[in-house]
Amino acid sequence: MMKPIPRTSVPGASRGAPASWSLPRALAVACLLVTQLAHADLKPAPSSALPAEDGYRLWLRYVPVAGPWRSRYRAGATELVGADASPTLRAARAELLRGLTGLLQLQPQSMTSVTRDGAIVFGTPRSSALVKSLPLDLRQAGTEGYLIRTLTIDGHGATVIAANTDVGVLYGAFGFLRLLQTRQPIRHLDIASSPKISRRVLDHWDNLNGSVERGYAGDSLWKWESLPEYLSPRYTDYARACASIGINGAVLDNVNASPFILTPFYLRKVAALAGVLRPYGIRVYLSVPFSAPVSLGKLKSADPLDPRVQAWWSAKVAEIYRDIPDFGGLLMKANSEGQPGPEDYGRTQAQGANTLARALAPHGGIVMWRAFVYTTAARSEDRAKQAYDTFKPLDGKFADNVLVQVKNGPFDFQPREPFHPLFGAMPHTHLMPELQITKEYLGQRTSIVYLGPLFQEVLRADTWTRGAGSTVARVIDGSLYGERLTAIAGVANTGSLRNWSGSIFNQANWYAFGRLAWDPDLSARDIAAEWVAMTFTSDPHFLTPVVTMMMESREAAVDYMTPLGLAGQMAAQTHFGPAPWVAPSAGLPPDWSSTYYSRADASGIGFDRTATGSDAVAQYSPHLAALWGNPATCPDDLLLWFHHLSWDYRMRSGETLWDSLVGHYDRGVAWVKQARATWSTLAPYVDPQRFQLTANFLAIEQKDAQWWRDASIAYFQSISHRPLPAGVAAPPDTLAHYEAFCVPYVEGTPAPGPGCPPADLAVPR
Amino acid sequence: MMKPIPRTSVPGASRGAPASWSLPRALAVACLLVTQLAHADLKPAPSSALPAEDGYRLWLRYVPVAGPWRSRYRAGATELVGADASPTLRAARAELLRGLTGLLQLQPQSMTSVTRDGAIVFGTPRSSALVKSLPLDLRQAGTEGYLIRTLTIDGHGATVIAANTDVGVLYGAFGFLRLLQTRQPIRHLDIASSPKISRRVLDHWDNLNGSVERGYAGDSLWKWESLPEYLSPRYTDYARACASIGINGAVLDNVNASPFILTPFYLRKVAALAGVLRPYGIRVYLSVPFSAPVSLGKLKSADPLDPRVQAWWSAKVAEIYRDIPDFGGLLMKANSEGQPGPEDYGRTQAQGANTLARALAPHGGIVMWRAFVYTTAARSEDRAKQAYDTFKPLDGKFADNVLVQVKNGPFDFQPREPFHPLFGAMPHTHLMPELQITKEYLGQRTSIVYLGPLFQEVLRADTWTRGAGSTVARVIDGSLYGERLTAIAGVANTGSLRNWSGSIFNQANWYAFGRLAWDPDLSARDIAAEWVAMTFTSDPHFLTPVVTMMMESREAAVDYMTPLGLAGQMAAQTHFGPAPWVAPSAGLPPDWSSTYYSRADASGIGFDRTATGSDAVAQYSPHLAALWGNPATCPDDLLLWFHHLSWDYRMRSGETLWDSLVGHYDRGVAWVKQARATWSTLAPYVDPQRFQLTANFLAIEQKDAQWWRDASIAYFQSISHRPLPAGVAAPPDTLAHYEAFCVPYVEGTPAPGPGCPPADLAVPR
Repeated sequence: MMKPIPRTSVPGASRGAPASWSLPRALAVACLLVTQLAHADLKPAPSSALPAEDGYRLWLRYVPVAGPWRSRYRAGATELVGADASPTLRAARAELLRGLTGLLQLQPQSMTSVTRDGAIVFGTPRSSALVKSLPLDLRQAGTEGYLIRTLTIDGHGATVIAANTDVGVLYGAFGFLRLLQTRQPIRHLDIASSPKISRRVLDHWDNLNGSVERGYAGDSLWKWESLPEYLSPRYTDYARACASIGINGAVLDNVNASPFILTPFYLRKVAALAGVLRPYGIRVYLSVPFSAPVSLGKLKSADPLDPRVQAWWSAKVAEIYRDIPDFGGLLMKANSEGQPGPEDYGRTQAQGANTLARALAPHGGIVMWRAFVYTTAARSEDRAKQAYDTFKPLDGKFADNVLVQVKNGPFDFQPREPFHPLFGAMPHTHLMPELQITKEYLGQRTSIVYLGPLFQEVLRADTWTRGAGSTVARVIDGSLYGERLTAIAGVANTGSLRNWSGSIFNQANWYAFGRLAWDPDLSARDIAAEWVAMTFTSDPHFLTPVVTMMMESREAAVDYMTPLGLAGQMAAQTHFGPAPWVAPSAGLPPDWSSTYYSRADASGIGFDRTATGSDAVAQYSPHLAALWGNPATCPDDLLLWFHHLSWDYRMRSGETLWDSLVGHYDRGVAWVKQARATWSTLAPYVDPQRFQLTANFLAIEQKDAQWWRDASIAYFQSISHRPLPAGVAAPPDTLAHYEAFCVPYVEGTPAPGPGCPPADLAVPR
Repeated sequence: MMKPIPRTSVPGASRGAPASWSLPRALAVACLLVTQLAHADLKPAPSSALPAEDGYRLWLRYVPVAGPWRSRYRAGATELVGADASPTLRAARAELLRGLTGLLQLQPQSMTSVTRDGAIVFGTPRSSALVKSLPLDLRQAGTEGYLIRTLTIDGHGATVIAANTDVGVLYGAFGFLRLLQTRQPIRHLDIASSPKISRRVLDHWDNLNGSVERGYAGDSLWKWESLPEYLSPRYTDYARACASIGINGAVLDNVNASPFILTPFYLRKVAALAGVLRPYGIRVYLSVPFSAPVSLGKLKSADPLDPRVQAWWSAKVAEIYRDIPDFGGLLMKANSEGQPGPEDYGRTQAQGANTLARALAPHGGIVMWRAFVYTTAARSEDRAKQAYDTFKPLDGKFADNVLVQVKNGPFDFQPREPFHPLFGAMPHTHLMPELQITKEYLGQRTSIVYLGPLFQEVLRADTWTRGAGSTVARVIDGSLYGERLTAIAGVANTGSLRNWSGSIFNQANWYAFGRLAWDPDLSARDIAAEWVAMTFTSDPHFLTPVVTMMMESREAAVDYMTPLGLAGQMAAQTHFGPAPWVAPSAGLPPDWSSTYYSRADASGIGFDRTATGSDAVAQYSPHLAALWGNPATCPDDLLLWFHHLSWDYRMRSGETLWDSLVGHYDRGVAWVKQARATWSTLAPYVDPQRFQLTANFLAIEQKDAQWWRDASIAYFQSISHRPLPAGVAAPPDTLAHYEAFCVPYVEGTPAPGPGCPPADLAVPR
């Protein structure tokens, strides 16, 4: 028999309530159903009829299922059979209970054996004799994956969620709930799912002072001042959200790291967080500065070949593992943007990484060593070439527990770049991609830019390093070069704001990262559809237009910011808003200026990266070098990345380059207007709070897109001296106006942006 | 007839729900009552039975009333009679509906005339002919106050909430709801309440980059990047909370101000916020930098007597009033801690203030000019004397729309200081006190320190400037010197954290500030009791011990931090944790060191502020100067503020000063232990989330109190060379240990604290 949902408020009524409350319990229970079913999402109600939601519950809302699905699902979720042998299995049970109770408004009964049709059996062969006895081929599940199968057990139809490890069961529980959340049939299930990449890590750029570099969602999730004593319930909800999409690692602190994180004072706090995350399969990692042996250890040097330095790292790592036995490892940003590194001591990046690796190896820890290095090469050289030039010669020199962490593109998380030439170029080195979930260069908090298509574009990009099909995904999942240690990192967009990511649609990027980290072959569109169904509703009147909007949104941002392969046109430092006029100056290195990237002049626009220019294209496989090195065969969307072309260059479309450029800006703005119009029709399907937030944010995005378009056209026209195509509106203000406009303070950037009056206008102290 | 509560979820059920939902509406409605009544707070249930609360609702929780109060209150809230003639009156009605529906689980019906017993009539004579017709003496209500009276109207018993202004009605609505929330009888009401101080202002030290100086509750409430398009529902809830306690002004930005706030870019955003706050009677004010005419206006000077500077301020102020016609005015921190000011141009503080005042006067705006000035006097002079020395000679020189904003004490928001000697000393100048709600020097986020007693101590302090009874309250409410412009400021403790103030108990300080700003004669204990009843429960098993704990908490913090009149012993910059050993150094001005304040040496401890020392005591009235200037008559709790005394000095208790000092530290720690024990017994009365947060924070406070006690005793013993009294435990570590210990990052302070290894250990970039 199914048991009605206990709500904390109902038991109270039968627990000695005054006479005037004494409606029979059965009635009270019946009412709860009525009350809660009214939230059902089958039919759109006027938006005011949906209770306001603030986005806290992310894609784990578990709102009641209505209509025929409800009875179908109820029939398949009558009882739960599984052991609570570990904190992770208890978390799996708790999530199944929470999810099913919310979705079905009935709580399945917990049993020790299958007693009726519709049982859900979960566990591992070790935790459950029943699971062990079932005819399941658990090899398909690997170490972290799971099977979900419909089986007959003791004469009853049952759904089995089985895995080799407890965390596999937890992932399976979330996978099963996702089926219900997205309205999939559950009567005949035969699912095997396991992650293709073994370390799926969020990099939090959270500073110990509570700020978040490039964070657009409030301050840090980690409340250091009240750790380890106070464990906010939010830490657990963070872990649930991560586990629900298979994320199994978190680097807690910023890559621009503070050595204080390695003091006992902070390590106690880190250990407390690790304790909260552990049941959810999430290991903790830390970013550390290369100079820690000097600043913290009081050594004279941080030379990685100095035995005292090596001993210091070994002792420090051992200290970490004493309190955190499953500590994941260290992330290092070295010789990059002012950070110290091995090159300060005449050592290679590999020598630096290997010193850390040796300290971690006895404990099973790894080093994630960032390839984002550009201090060594002369700054006059093409910035896009420097990571390759630094790391390619070191292939095969890294210890086996080192991963070189490579940004998706050769520059820095732009709206569009080609994939990073290191992918495929270091067959004897573990490479892990670093994707950016936080939208540093893509409109930050308020824009709607779904990054699924960007992530997918990178993962599916063909490096051609072993012929056709040598995609980035195959490089990093180990199938191309046979690595066993595989990993992927995403720079998190989480913060202390109630809705976690600054906006509702930004949540989709966290979700998409997790799903693609689990399986890089998933489609961005399918992921968007899943997310929409779970976060809003599966009603196709809403889902279809919203998925379309999401899928188009990133290309729209490329259009209104940096079309045709342009990059680096954002305001320096804040990276918010257009600043194509920013030229190198005393305070600004050339490669932190915009003109360095656009190379716009009277003769044309674009960065010549062919043999006549920086020859960066030669860092790619010969097939791609030939294809991309020729403007006639280079795809439009990378054209100005690789080529400097006349303003009058004829595009394949027949337009001139100038006309095409202007057209892209206009297309971007037009898209945002259209998205606003679309969203405005969708109020009936969304609660008023999330509807309004998104509507207002789209209004902001339209304003920002227009600003990008107007400022960019005004600037480039001042260089091209070409007329605007017929019918195209001139920017309403002068270039001088756009240059003078400044956004002094931007979230995630402590200092006022350039273009703004400096120093004396900054907030003192 | 009373109407049952409509809940958004219930109408849904009767609006075309599928067949399976078709329980009759009546049943559904009945159930809601059962469900919601189960939350009733009559009997303590085991804590797990109370639904978790995150503190967002502050003291406006409106949880159901149970037991006999419920029927009594229901009988007095049958229908609402009032006009919706303005946004403010609509806010009053909405609050009454929200409050009564939550408290009584029945929604009073809205009527146009009184039709039955128990009506609630609200309005002004202008908005309501009925109110106009009633025999009420509205002179008692003043411009912002209200009457709440039980009257017979058309033969029916009614409660009338009447005022001369719409905002008075809103305050009356909150006042009426407070009666229910605190379980007061409402059958025979004859209440007249009006504020004794006209401007009751929160100062937000919120930076435009989203951080909050001395903020311990997350980042700024104001989300500048999405204003003016997006008006977070949180802005309205902030306004409701403020209005509920009578706060009628908000300075939106930090006193360390950025000129950007005066750009059109930000002023549009300020205007949008002003629009949200306006219906709740809250005017917006801004902090501005004195140098704005230079940095923003591109003038060569900010000399207040320069006509171009005066014209610039006039034009800028006019620009503000164009968009914000009820703009409150400007707050200025000048010639203080590196801020520019009139003294840079050889002008007085009054000349500076009056230039702003002239710009504001035509629009009805005011200047709040901080007296926290200590750059001019030589830093070797007693810091505590400098504001008085600077401002006292300017008495009578300030324009009529200037208020000089004076911190409660002569130094800087310490756990205890004497009142500021300027109070009472400037009879021809409007003075407003600046209290600090955020606990910069009092343990910051995690300590439980109820500031009601501190505020009360200041307000009730007798300045003796016109003989006995010349209290600070009488100085600032205008009754002593007949000012008509009166004001009070509190430095806010609000932030973006869900619970607003960083902890539940910190909310009480916001509440107490508002209540005392309305009526400085209220008792801190009564306010605490009100707050506890509204925030937790009125059950005396909980209320009595918690009010006692609150009332004792500030003295406990004084005991474990800076007993006997000590001050300034916190870590420099972070102001968190003990650092009595910090001496003046190259990087640290003398008056930012600890030894400057303790003056501890072999001969004794304390700052001689008598005639043999700095003679700061002479800044007080002769009566007080005589009383405080003599150690035999100086109260113990100010002893070391005014006197340098031998370690062996005999206290009135008979103890030596050294023994007494040590005893205070121990008493402080013992108190926290006791508070923890008390709180641990109260779980049955509190929901688990708020219970746990508070329990964990008390654990942190105990650790911090012990640290303060141990470090302070270790340091002072190294100077006094006196043995510890019998039975007193020695600090477990050496002084060197405490000196080496550092808390590198503290909320509200961007840079690592001193005592920590500097520069190379800071977070880069």
